[in-house]
Amino acid sequence: MAADILIRNARPMGGDPVDLLIRDGRFAPPGGDRPARELDATGQIALPGLVEAHTHLDKTLIGMDWFENRVGPTRNHRILADRKAKRELGIDARRQSARQVLQTLSYGVLHIRSHVDVDTEIGIANIEGVLETREALRDIADIQIVAFPQSGMLPREGTLDLMDAAMRAGADIVGGIDPATIDRDPVRHLDAIFALADRHAKPIDIHLHELGELGAFCLELIVERTRALSLQGRVMVSHAYCLGMLEPARQQGLIETMAAERIAVMTVGSPAAPALPLRLMQQCGLTVASGSDGIQNTWEPWGNGDMLERAKYLAQRNGMTNDADLVETMRICTHGGAEGIGLAGYGLAEGDFGDLVLVPARTLAEAVALTPQKRTVIHRGRILVRDGTPAEDLPRIA
Amino acid sequence: MAADILIRNARPMGGDPVDLLIRDGRFAPPGGDRPARELDATGQIALPGLVEAHTHLDKTLIGMDWFENRVGPTRNHRILADRKAKRELGIDARRQSARQVLQTLSYGVLHIRSHVDVDTEIGIANIEGVLETREALRDIADIQIVAFPQSGMLPREGTLDLMDAAMRAGADIVGGIDPATIDRDPVRHLDAIFALADRHAKPIDIHLHELGELGAFCLELIVERTRALSLQGRVMVSHAYCLGMLEPARQQGLIETMAAERIAVMTVGSPAAPALPLRLMQQCGLTVASGSDGIQNTWEPWGNGDMLERAKYLAQRNGMTNDADLVETMRICTHGGAEGIGLAGYGLAEGDFGDLVLVPARTLAEAVALTPQKRTVIHRGRILVRDGTPAEDLPRIA
Repeated sequence: MAADILIRNARPMGGDPVDLLIRDGRFAPPGGDRPARELDATGQIALPGLVEAHTHLDKTLIGMDWFENRVGPTRNHRILADRKAKRELGIDARRQSARQVLQTLSYGVLHIRSHVDVDTEIGIANIEGVLETREALRDIADIQIVAFPQSGMLPREGTLDLMDAAMRAGADIVGGIDPATIDRDPVRHLDAIFALADRHAKPIDIHLHELGELGAFCLELIVERTRALSLQGRVMVSHAYCLGMLEPARQQGLIETMAAERIAVMTVGSPAAPALPLRLMQQCGLTVASGSDGIQNTWEPWGNGDMLERAKYLAQRNGMTNDADLVETMRICTHGGAEGIGLAGYGLAEGDFGDLVLVPARTLAEAVALTPQKRTVIHRGRILVRDGTPAEDLPRIA
Repeated sequence: MAADILIRNARPMGGDPVDLLIRDGRFAPPGGDRPARELDATGQIALPGLVEAHTHLDKTLIGMDWFENRVGPTRNHRILADRKAKRELGIDARRQSARQVLQTLSYGVLHIRSHVDVDTEIGIANIEGVLETREALRDIADIQIVAFPQSGMLPREGTLDLMDAAMRAGADIVGGIDPATIDRDPVRHLDAIFALADRHAKPIDIHLHELGELGAFCLELIVERTRALSLQGRVMVSHAYCLGMLEPARQQGLIETMAAERIAVMTVGSPAAPALPLRLMQQCGLTVASGSDGIQNTWEPWGNGDMLERAKYLAQRNGMTNDADLVETMRICTHGGAEGIGLAGYGLAEGDFGDLVLVPARTLAEAVALTPQKRTVIHRGRILVRDGTPAEDLPRIA
């Protein structure tokens, strides 16, 4: 536990300047002994730790040789290339996940939900690697691990057992993927992963790329199972492109149904995929989180994991340019993410964990639009990054 | 003219390392007296100067107070807000254009085509302001000025005369805007701007946001006039969203027709507008350029003007992740732009102007995907930016 610290003249969520006291790792009411440590945050906006609600820590190639991408255009091409790369490039899930966590820490990302591959070639080796990183970096970031059947589950016999093993090894969430187009049997796929989640009393997070009415049908199946197993607030659907492709009445009806079951949606705001109706989703009370998805891997060569930049991308994808809209997309990358992945004690209120990001900006909208880089990142009162420079005592990656 | 310089071990367009000699402001064959100045470019890829083929230098708010954007959602709302801001915020076109040019210089942008507003409120004041910047910065960047009727031309009487005055004052290109949806009379709008261009013997650059078949019809009108006035290679259509909205056969036919008349297309790759079929456009031999459009103005709060990052956006908007695709989008932001805006002596070959950008990257695709910031920028042999740091002798903005 870091010593107490008083952060002076910070502007929480762009509001008026206040002093923020972190005592015993949590925000505390002013007063009492003045802490020995102070930090001047004049001119800085304070945000709670940024939330990366969807990435693939085990796949990043950060710091490795350049991967020349010649992969074919379909999702199946990419899955095959991904599996080949795991075999041939020696992607060390422990090392690579740590590299990504430390890189995104510098942006203020303190909470990460990572899908981690489980398949019949690598078994649960990647889960074990990311579990090691979670343990090694537990003092500087929260990492949630989804046991993710990237290569399909039903068509590759033994995958479900490996997912069960992953959960026993310490994974936090049961993953799923395209019940129809990849697993070819939506009911059986969803029944299997909901049963696994029920058995381990764990949440669910399903990659759903399926389009139009097929995706909507799968969403309905997810809603039915969420209701039947009373998993309200424990299910996230990642991507859910179909929500951007339906007739207005159908779209709204489905969103309201999902909101009623407190199913969260994670959207990356990808420029090449259907745009989700962010305003409608928020009006309907649906929890919306966001993520970077893959960063510098065989799927996509780019990405830095900055969730403040992600807020900008969400706005751009939706043609939103008003300050009020940018504040909303910033909320998706902070509070929305926290709600979506189920964080406790999240925020800047007294009693919340003493985590924050200081961003040099005049308004929240400016922070989103210009994504200033010289941020200061504090976790449980400990300064991890100061004006963009990582602290000397951060862990090194072996 | 800067003294000669030998750039050692640079990798032109990601190829093998070579020494590049700039003599009398142009790339020269090796040999002769060794220049007094040398620059070690080991590990750096050499690109020709990045080309910003479409921006609005007179509108940026860089360095000004934060503009709280509460603008309504339509293009007309934005035009009104833009005109109001010009009145009320005191946007100094000379100062602001210089700020943007100097900012984007640090990314390696050496050639800029800027649309500059002409309207019945400000007259040609913005043209005069950007002309001053062009003159003040002539030793470090090429600036082309488009006389642009942002607020409409036919519906606002006197605008066409002001555009004529702008051309006489020194503007380089005749602009146009949405002949149907803004000017309400496509034939009369296009006839007027083509006549103006013909009279001044200048090229044309038309903002065409019009969608679907309406946009396609306007494109046909543009093609007809280009052919009739023998303006092949002198007409650019900016945005041309309609090209991304047509049935395949119609789409290809129109693109081939445009290519035959050597009409160039400028696309920003906006995530919220229809995606243009980049591969098809290039297969058909259409010249494709790109630009940042507005940077930090009342239209859009974001933007940095980095045309290497723009190459990434173009790829992302089109779902392109292969290295070969990234090389193509990089070409759009260099050679495509140069061809589109009609630059002479552009490139890294002997005899071309001695302009280049050194980017620390292993491959061209990496340069696009990760957009390294510590670039070195050279213009006619003069080092303007070294490893991301602007030279001491760059002009200051008063």
